[in-house]
Amino acid sequence: MTVLSLATSFLLQSGIWFALICAIIGLGAALYLIRLIFAQSPGNDRMRQIAAAIEEGAKAYLNRQIISVSIIAVVIFVLLAFTRDLFTAAGFCIGAVCSMLAGYVGMRVAVISNCRTAQAATKSQESALRVAFNGGAVTGLLVVALALLSVGLFFLICKAVLPLDKAVGSMVGLALGASLISVFARLGGGIYTKAADVGADLVGKIESNLEEDDPRNPATIADNVGDNVGDCAGMAADVFETYAVSIIGAILVGFLTLPNTPEAIIYPFLLGGISVIGAIAGIFYVNVRKTKPGRVLVEAVLASALVSAILYWPITTLLFPQTHSPQQIYLAALIGLLMTGIIVAITNYYTATEFSPVRKIARASETGHATNIIAGLAIGQHATALPVIFIALAILSSYYFAGLYGIATAVTSMLSMAGIIISLDAFGPITDNAGGVAVMSDLPKETRMITDELDAVGNTMKAVTKGYAIASAGLAALVLFGSYVSELRAHFGQIGGHDIGPFEFSLERPQIIIGLFLGGLLPFLFSAFSLEAVGKAAGAVVKEVRRQLAAKPGILKGTDLPEYGACVDIVTKAALREMIVPALLPVVFVLVAAFFGYVVLGGLLVGTIVTGLFVAISMTSGGGAWDNAKKYIEEGNFGGKGSFAHQDRPLIR
Amino acid sequence: MTVLSLATSFLLQSGIWFALICAIIGLGAALYLIRLIFAQSPGNDRMRQIAAAIEEGAKAYLNRQIISVSIIAVVIFVLLAFTRDLFTAAGFCIGAVCSMLAGYVGMRVAVISNCRTAQAATKSQESALRVAFNGGAVTGLLVVALALLSVGLFFLICKAVLPLDKAVGSMVGLALGASLISVFARLGGGIYTKAADVGADLVGKIESNLEEDDPRNPATIADNVGDNVGDCAGMAADVFETYAVSIIGAILVGFLTLPNTPEAIIYPFLLGGISVIGAIAGIFYVNVRKTKPGRVLVEAVLASALVSAILYWPITTLLFPQTHSPQQIYLAALIGLLMTGIIVAITNYYTATEFSPVRKIARASETGHATNIIAGLAIGQHATALPVIFIALAILSSYYFAGLYGIATAVTSMLSMAGIIISLDAFGPITDNAGGVAVMSDLPKETRMITDELDAVGNTMKAVTKGYAIASAGLAALVLFGSYVSELRAHFGQIGGHDIGPFEFSLERPQIIIGLFLGGLLPFLFSAFSLEAVGKAAGAVVKEVRRQLAAKPGILKGTDLPEYGACVDIVTKAALREMIVPALLPVVFVLVAAFFGYVVLGGLLVGTIVTGLFVAISMTSGGGAWDNAKKYIEEGNFGGKGSFAHQDRPLIR
Repeated sequence: MTVLSLATSFLLQSGIWFALICAIIGLGAALYLIRLIFAQSPGNDRMRQIAAAIEEGAKAYLNRQIISVSIIAVVIFVLLAFTRDLFTAAGFCIGAVCSMLAGYVGMRVAVISNCRTAQAATKSQESALRVAFNGGAVTGLLVVALALLSVGLFFLICKAVLPLDKAVGSMVGLALGASLISVFARLGGGIYTKAADVGADLVGKIESNLEEDDPRNPATIADNVGDNVGDCAGMAADVFETYAVSIIGAILVGFLTLPNTPEAIIYPFLLGGISVIGAIAGIFYVNVRKTKPGRVLVEAVLASALVSAILYWPITTLLFPQTHSPQQIYLAALIGLLMTGIIVAITNYYTATEFSPVRKIARASETGHATNIIAGLAIGQHATALPVIFIALAILSSYYFAGLYGIATAVTSMLSMAGIIISLDAFGPITDNAGGVAVMSDLPKETRMITDELDAVGNTMKAVTKGYAIASAGLAALVLFGSYVSELRAHFGQIGGHDIGPFEFSLERPQIIIGLFLGGLLPFLFSAFSLEAVGKAAGAVVKEVRRQLAAKPGILKGTDLPEYGACVDIVTKAALREMIVPALLPVVFVLVAAFFGYVVLGGLLVGTIVTGLFVAISMTSGGGAWDNAKKYIEEGNFGGKGSFAHQDRPLIR
Repeated sequence: MTVLSLATSFLLQSGIWFALICAIIGLGAALYLIRLIFAQSPGNDRMRQIAAAIEEGAKAYLNRQIISVSIIAVVIFVLLAFTRDLFTAAGFCIGAVCSMLAGYVGMRVAVISNCRTAQAATKSQESALRVAFNGGAVTGLLVVALALLSVGLFFLICKAVLPLDKAVGSMVGLALGASLISVFARLGGGIYTKAADVGADLVGKIESNLEEDDPRNPATIADNVGDNVGDCAGMAADVFETYAVSIIGAILVGFLTLPNTPEAIIYPFLLGGISVIGAIAGIFYVNVRKTKPGRVLVEAVLASALVSAILYWPITTLLFPQTHSPQQIYLAALIGLLMTGIIVAITNYYTATEFSPVRKIARASETGHATNIIAGLAIGQHATALPVIFIALAILSSYYFAGLYGIATAVTSMLSMAGIIISLDAFGPITDNAGGVAVMSDLPKETRMITDELDAVGNTMKAVTKGYAIASAGLAALVLFGSYVSELRAHFGQIGGHDIGPFEFSLERPQIIIGLFLGGLLPFLFSAFSLEAVGKAAGAVVKEVRRQLAAKPGILKGTDLPEYGACVDIVTKAALREMIVPALLPVVFVLVAAFFGYVVLGGLLVGTIVTGLFVAISMTSGGGAWDNAKKYIEEGNFGGKGSFAHQDRPLIR
């Protein structure tokens, strides 16, 4: 018993240090992977040229994005320093810089990995898979390691010089910094990648009958750049934010709702630290296991979750004294791991070519584009049911095990899986780009077949990551709502019971209904502006491609080179310009709601989660299913490439 | 003062009789209009033939729908009679029969009006407008008159033989009956009309280059039938239900929250009765005013609202004794009228060809179908913002004026405008069909131009009615939530204050969050199943049309007659089969939520309103805007008919 209680007090004292050490191990592993990738051959001159063009476009975009966002960041920094305090402002900087760093370095490595993956594909599928996966794993490791490092170090510093409540409060600055980068990186990257993709396909594939990644398509480099800035840098910043925010949210909830349990503040760090080890285990697994690519990756997630689940147990029982029922808390943590698996499985069902949803869309294409669109919209909406039902079950059960802190624990453990999940996600753009490099540098057909298969797996993995990001963000937002209410009560000195007067968040109050409506509107309006931005930018790309093809007929014959830079420039500018309005929307809505009072603001938060979950899942799952329905037809089903179902050309004329 | 208080007690005693007399006047006006329409010439043989084919298809569908629904109705009747009481069961029958009657008779008159409108269009636009409008007005008058009559008479009977609380409770049966018909008529009609429309257009217009309503298109009769069963019979049943339910909801709220104010139960009837007079005034206005069609109709709504607003004042001041501040209640009633105008204006902006949203979609078509779809989705989502913000303001202000009863009053006055609004809506299918009759019977070009212009106005009116139906249903559902909570408290004897124990609907409770999620899922899943049904049925129509055109090449040359009946049969069967699953969804969800308890059920109700509003508005406004973007291009913009923007054929090949 003495040994045990010694271990308990040791964990309580140095739990954060443990997490920091794990984070540093994670950074070391990322560095090791970078060295591994650099040691690979980047292929022939043509391949290096194309990779360099993609790299240049991606760097140019990200540099301009950083400059734009930095201006806004400086304004917010000054505001925070004056209205709150220097610690909160410093936290803001740290959050913003680390989030940016994870996305930036990760994307640079991803871009470097693409030609190396293509080159490895000339040898074997296995080596191509490993190069691509290791490239993506750098981003995954950077996200969790930097998030844990920044939150942990900043908390240690704050705790050393400030009283505990102030220290916890300053963490909000770090969360805000991560949020700022997240909104802009995800939005800008998203607009960039979709506009380039739609623009390239509309003229290139449909009007001019070119293959994907055909070097004669003037928008092809922009398309490849888009995958990196959107799915790699954008998603990294997005999940970095959710991860950092949910650890901070868990600390807040632990501090506010369990004031006599200091363990509750340490536990989220321990979960995060252990999961870095779990992620490394998963990465190792991919590098030794030999089987089909889709299977290896799913197994790696399971391996990673299993290692985490096993290591959670001793830590949880050691940290929490017997009176606090470590079993209950451990079960809440397990729910987070389980939810990751469930969401992966559900999204996989709705977006992979093996299952009926994708095939239904493909079949609907036989009767024209209208029935295709109707089927895709329907599948997207269908796909919301299971995730939302499981999220509801996760809320119920983790709340049952440990109250609001139970939900916070489940969210933290779910998000601590980000290391392995983001590795899968960043695998997507690398294989997509590897396919592009292979096509553009005329590598043999077998090589392309390998990259094509990896690309299809990448498509599903991208959709899976989005499902994971949405579900975890939904749960994290609930924790934020809980900590918002707890802090209101703590601040205004009215804790517990029913006698909460002005802070009653009852559905019977018109303020709550209005908050729910305003909050519910936010995802729809955000989506409307983002869609509009993509449509406008894609239209501009279409016009530019048409102009180039008309001005230089040699491009299509292969005797003239297209100006790739023109399309890259159009989407870069469009993404940076169009992301401003949607990025401001949440700020404006929060200010308006706050004007009506704390209760309306609380309703707004919940309303945003309610509609946001559905809008987001229906769009990402529907999008993934549409994308793979196309691939399913291209595999030769329903007439295959060039058939009515594929090209949408009238049968009877 | 004695005269005034005499009048007050007279109104209190015979307010319901006043409403019944107004309803009978409304029925009389409908009969008069039917006689007027029958007096019109139905045109030449060919026109009568086509109208007869449409009539036959519509009757056949509605008869089969009635048989299917009747089976379900009998089961529910027996269940109600055994689990509740005979009065509730009888109410259920009355609600179902009256709702069905309004839609059935209205649709029969609409079908009779189509060839008469086409014939009138050979004379002048004005006379065509009046025939079509009067045909639609029959449905409008039937909806409000039958709803008022059934609710009023049934309430009088119940009150005479039951204690007041039981009498009020039995009204729920009537609401349930109306709901049953509403769900099936709207769903079945909706699936029918959209499947026939998409199917007819995909092969007819796009593959075979036929004009709208070309008699060589085998799906053209099904398309015309669809407009009647969907927009006329379906919408009539839908609004009948919302109207009946909201009067009953207002009675319930008045009874439960203002137990010492018997006036509160009478007032909804008075609002309804007056508005029948308002609707007749609006109908009269259309028959005497000479100006552009779109303008006449909007002015008629204003005239109708003005008459109602003026007549509301004396009734309100007389009914409510000075102590109950009749001004406040009058203001709440005005908010309902105002909301009708605001929703009409907003929907008009988003769906009429004169404004930028429709033109943006038309412009986006220049760069291909993908940018067109993206633009349409974005406009649909944009279109949710203003209605929801105004609904929020209406809730705030009417609650401010008279609490929950204020919201109930606003909803009742908004829905009492249904007489004139449904007249506009049913005008849509009549003009659409008149255009069909004109094209198919080769009437001169000038006649078709008249029917085309009326048809475009009808499109906007259909979208406007949908916006009105959605907004009023959203508000009505809030009243239902209020009466649900009030009844729970009354039933379990815990009225008022904070000490409400198990019936606290706070956002902090996981049960409420889960209820919100489940409720939020319902509209998405309902929409998913409905979309899927439309897509499948449309695909079947496409295949049938292709089969007929391939089997009999003479059809396209005009030497062979297509088998219209085959397409009518396909959509009839598909609509009846496919409506079952989505119609069952709400029942299943309510049962599941009820299993988790009253609180989850309350959360479910609100969650459904939150996402339902957005999903519904984005779909109807987006749909209306898309439809009119097509018409805008067909008017000669962005290249006009047959251009790239219109036909979506690649520019470069």
